[in-house]
Amino acid sequence: MSAQPEPIHDIAHLGNVELLTPKPVESLWYFRDLLGMEPVHTAGKSVYLRGYGDYATSTLKLTEAAQPGVGCVSWRAASPQALERRAKVIEEAGLGLGWTNGDFGRGRSYRFRDPDGHLMEIYYEEQKFVAPPELHSNLKNLPQKFTGRGAGVRRIDHLALLAKDVAANRKFATELLGFQLREQVRYDEGKTEIGSWMSPTAIHHQLAYVVDVKGAHGRLHHFSMWVDNRDDVLRAADILTENGIFIEAGPSKHNNSQGFYLYSYEPGGNRVEVYSSSFLVVAPDWEPVIWNEEERGTGTYWGAKLPDSFIEYATPNVQGEVSKSPEVLKEAIAALS
Amino acid sequence: MSAQPEPIHDIAHLGNVELLTPKPVESLWYFRDLLGMEPVHTAGKSVYLRGYGDYATSTLKLTEAAQPGVGCVSWRAASPQALERRAKVIEEAGLGLGWTNGDFGRGRSYRFRDPDGHLMEIYYEEQKFVAPPELHSNLKNLPQKFTGRGAGVRRIDHLALLAKDVAANRKFATELLGFQLREQVRYDEGKTEIGSWMSPTAIHHQLAYVVDVKGAHGRLHHFSMWVDNRDDVLRAADILTENGIFIEAGPSKHNNSQGFYLYSYEPGGNRVEVYSSSFLVVAPDWEPVIWNEEERGTGTYWGAKLPDSFIEYATPNVQGEVSKSPEVLKEAIAALS
Amino acid sequence: MSAQPEPIHDIAHLGNVELLTPKPVESLWYFRDLLGMEPVHTAGKSVYLRGYGDYATSTLKLTEAAQPGVGCVSWRAASPQALERRAKVIEEAGLGLGWTNGDFGRGRSYRFRDPDGHLMEIYYEEQKFVAPPELHSNLKNLPQKFTGRGAGVRRIDHLALLAKDVAANRKFATELLGFQLREQVRYDEGKTEIGSWMSPTAIHHQLAYVVDVKGAHGRLHHFSMWVDNRDDVLRAADILTENGIFIEAGPSKHNNSQGFYLYSYEPGGNRVEVYSSSFLVVAPDWEPVIWNEEERGTGTYWGAKLPDSFIEYATPNVQGEVSKSPEVLKEAIAALS
Amino acid sequence: MSAQPEPIHDIAHLGNVELLTPKPVESLWYFRDLLGMEPVHTAGKSVYLRGYGDYATSTLKLTEAAQPGVGCVSWRAASPQALERRAKVIEEAGLGLGWTNGDFGRGRSYRFRDPDGHLMEIYYEEQKFVAPPELHSNLKNLPQKFTGRGAGVRRIDHLALLAKDVAANRKFATELLGFQLREQVRYDEGKTEIGSWMSPTAIHHQLAYVVDVKGAHGRLHHFSMWVDNRDDVLRAADILTENGIFIEAGPSKHNNSQGFYLYSYEPGGNRVEVYSSSFLVVAPDWEPVIWNEEERGTGTYWGAKLPDSFIEYATPNVQGEVSKSPEVLKEAIAALS
Repeated sequence: MSAQPEPIHDIAHLGNVELLTPKPVESLWYFRDLLGMEPVHTAGKSVYLRGYGDYATSTLKLTEAAQPGVGCVSWRAASPQALERRAKVIEEAGLGLGWTNGDFGRGRSYRFRDPDGHLMEIYYEEQKFVAPPELHSNLKNLPQKFTGRGAGVRRIDHLALLAKDVAANRKFATELLGFQLREQVRYDEGKTEIGSWMSPTAIHHQLAYVVDVKGAHGRLHHFSMWVDNRDDVLRAADILTENGIFIEAGPSKHNNSQGFYLYSYEPGGNRVEVYSSSFLVVAPDWEPVIWNEEERGTGTYWGAKLPDSFIEYATPNVQGEVSKSPEVLKEAIAALS
Repeated sequence: MSAQPEPIHDIAHLGNVELLTPKPVESLWYFRDLLGMEPVHTAGKSVYLRGYGDYATSTLKLTEAAQPGVGCVSWRAASPQALERRAKVIEEAGLGLGWTNGDFGRGRSYRFRDPDGHLMEIYYEEQKFVAPPELHSNLKNLPQKFTGRGAGVRRIDHLALLAKDVAANRKFATELLGFQLREQVRYDEGKTEIGSWMSPTAIHHQLAYVVDVKGAHGRLHHFSMWVDNRDDVLRAADILTENGIFIEAGPSKHNNSQGFYLYSYEPGGNRVEVYSSSFLVVAPDWEPVIWNEEERGTGTYWGAKLPDSFIEYATPNVQGEVSKSPEVLKEAIAALS
Repeated sequence: MSAQPEPIHDIAHLGNVELLTPKPVESLWYFRDLLGMEPVHTAGKSVYLRGYGDYATSTLKLTEAAQPGVGCVSWRAASPQALERRAKVIEEAGLGLGWTNGDFGRGRSYRFRDPDGHLMEIYYEEQKFVAPPELHSNLKNLPQKFTGRGAGVRRIDHLALLAKDVAANRKFATELLGFQLREQVRYDEGKTEIGSWMSPTAIHHQLAYVVDVKGAHGRLHHFSMWVDNRDDVLRAADILTENGIFIEAGPSKHNNSQGFYLYSYEPGGNRVEVYSSSFLVVAPDWEPVIWNEEERGTGTYWGAKLPDSFIEYATPNVQGEVSKSPEVLKEAIAALS
Repeated sequence: MSAQPEPIHDIAHLGNVELLTPKPVESLWYFRDLLGMEPVHTAGKSVYLRGYGDYATSTLKLTEAAQPGVGCVSWRAASPQALERRAKVIEEAGLGLGWTNGDFGRGRSYRFRDPDGHLMEIYYEEQKFVAPPELHSNLKNLPQKFTGRGAGVRRIDHLALLAKDVAANRKFATELLGFQLREQVRYDEGKTEIGSWMSPTAIHHQLAYVVDVKGAHGRLHHFSMWVDNRDDVLRAADILTENGIFIEAGPSKHNNSQGFYLYSYEPGGNRVEVYSSSFLVVAPDWEPVIWNEEERGTGTYWGAKLPDSFIEYATPNVQGEVSKSPEVLKEAIAALS
């Protein structure tokens, strides 16, 4: 038997994503009325929401801001001990910001920045959702009534962040957080890392880093919510279109992750995905699937190729040229899912 | 912070189930032509099969035998070290049978029996499936071409075993194997444990123990394969019916697990489920959902109640009275999923 | 070439069904909030509703009454001349009641009773729905925005009436109205007509007559609304269950009509079906499919058999024994779809 | 009451389409193994196929030829008398070719050409399919076992033909054949007729004429087969992709017809659609929905715009410039469904 180190299981799952929006009223309408999420709390300039199947009290925090983008990304630790271990490792790496008492629904949290500058935190204590009477489900293992409102997204799935240096951030996530690397897009005979998809759970990916073609920092590519069936994604497309929401791509099927996707821009400008299918990874020795220029094709398995905006637009939006070898890079992240 | 022990992550996932069949030709037809599984190997009286999305070479072993039922259930360890740790713990509990060189596609394995007598093993080394040219998928992260044959089941999901003493077997699985308890059915104000659903992964359950109403040992309730969409379950019902296969229950929706199910008997007599939906559990502190007599109802969320055969029939089939307080017990395991 | 008479095309389609309800507020909640229909008009004790894909202004009239049941069933003629022709034929048969100026959204109508006593009418002029701004769809060929509310039923599909003498009513519908006979259930070597399914359109059936096992008159078995996909029927089951609506049968698949069905009781007591799949009939020489005792089985193709209530309950509910040879009759209409 | 002429019901439905292919072996593989159609007869250079739900013996005739394209399009009359009436009208219009004894499975047929030169015929007598034992369904109203092979297309739906003069051909179909006009694309403030969609049944359209941007004659845009659910279209995309078939567009949703489409090229070169959703039209006074330049957009309701090939490629393929005002015309038929 080899003496290779055992897998790290200290991060249990993606817990919460904070989205920033310059149009809080319209963004809330999008997430509540169109995606069907449930607002559960308001504090300051923030509204906290949840999918009907999320077990935590809240999984999305919507915060008014001058520019759209991502605020704090919260990861749940597997145990109190795991929380301490990860905090120590991150602190030693010089990325730590320190402890907070925790945001709504969560206990003390250790804050830090990933190498690209995105704000993150780890916590262990989490308040389970207790439905008020009007949201009580008659299905005992469902934390909240399925209201059937809008697209009816079930739960938080993943987020994709842009990074100037994908490799550095991928190493951070796999080595310091312990995520398993699931898929990569690598160009130039493997030398250029265009994107990496990782997860702390059996869910295909909960975090992706993709190269920022404008060379900026701390930006969001998209945030993704899960629905159970492909038909739910199609239904979501009808609902978003009827309500004047811009659909950027899909419904269609990615090659990377096999996900069935629908990308739209919420009114605040952030790209949001309604997502289904994909596949679970439970193998402890999963070998990352690596796509080169030719293999990654248009980023779709079938369906039209992803539009240029999918590569060039992110939040906050920044001016500036698409950096170095644009032909390569622009096409590169078409595989992004 | 409490000093509670940390979760055990030594078992990675359900790896393989062996089904025994007195009608090997017809059973192979069922799994290959109707469910759409792929035969990959034959040895002695056994055929090895896989779902198109399974990453291991084989996940189902079909073995000719005088009676239907379950043979060996194989669990994959998370690392070589985890394999050693679990073998030691099981041996110390007096349940161990010893090491083998491993069945087709798997390395050395530690064999044992659960308290009810079902044969099991743990292994770490697993041969990934390498598709022959005619089964090569043009989707790089799919281990095998989606042939579209029959119901097209994607991957192994779970199995449900009967046990005379559910509590003892549940303790074995949670304490010695480290599975997380997800749901239970408990009667008599919680004193009688009718069934327990557990998992080593984010998949809702990969192992269930349900009371054997005939007081026998070592029997199988059902084996379950996954499809991605509820529509695939409906399509499977059409295919099974057109081919004269007896459908015992469904397509319908369980309350326990929220699974969308279809139960049929493969020609050898074993109950097989085509399964979708359900939900993932990633919370490290998941509190088991416990159903009492009233709450578990008919075992379905909507749709007709499960038939008596669902409680009384298992493989191998045995004669004998339904034991003690049959009214209670018969209804009891209706919640089985 | 034979000199057989040519098909009659004078009735174009089912136009409107009036349902009576002793609980108008709750019934309106069911049709508007749970099925997702749109109320468009109120007059006296009636509310007029429509499915999002119905082209007429209204297809369901909900009227407060002491007992549940069916009010007037309205059929649209294919032309002004066709209206006159049918009115004349019905009048000559002694079933006519005379002309009215037409209900909301429809021109002058000829009223009559079928042999069993159900009130019906034929009209030609129909007011197309013009959506108010808030219901304007951005899909030009969709008469109304797809709101995504509740089950989101698309359009009226059919209704099933009970009759003491099925044959007499079937002859009325085929000979006087010109409907094409699609399927039948006949017992006793074809001598006893248990049910007949007919249509004036390519839709499998828009009118069914099934024997009233209590020997009453003028009763409703069920009213049916269409959704486009089987998955929509499953979703409807979730929504109805979460809102405490009694689901009597399904989601499952009929053998007769191949329809994918979900039967629930709206709060007023009427049985309502959410329906999909089935098949279109465009053959001018369609030979009715006739099911005998053995062939009709349990009324389902797969899935649990229909419950006794499906045979014994109708609106208005009446006391009384299940008439003559109940074993035969009770099972008989299990094929009802 | 107005004295407007009554609707003509002489054509009952689209009966058969003949496709020409230079690669008969590969085309047969496509329709039989990938789409799941059933070959029922071979004669000369032709193979006759059917969808599992088609009631006629055959609905697709596949004929070896030097070039791909459409052969004879067969329409079924509603009665023997209707056949005589339509033959007479067409003959008087100078388009008639005369009577034949009928192709496989059909009685005597009157052949003619539409104004653009496509070969067509009308017949009344049709041989119903009688399944051989191995294809016998245990669902009595299903003419053939649902084999589950490939995409499992259910029945013939429609075809779209190119025409140099859309208006002339549309008039032919509506006035001489009696089809109802369902939708149109008209440019230049309605003066330029780009495409017209028509039907003799409740099916949204069974015949479309769209402008041939290369000014040729007698060409085919696409042939379309129906599946019951949108999920079946998605599954078809997986199957076609896994088998190396070029997918030109979709799965996605048209605005025109609301159809959920998937366009691929069968190996012989013809564009074939797998199709679902859309809507039925039963109104006798249906007002055609007319789309202008702005409204027709990209031809899709959501999803990527249709590619240029969708406008420029047809069978047989011809060289030559895209005629007059290409910007207008190229975009024009994007609405084609």
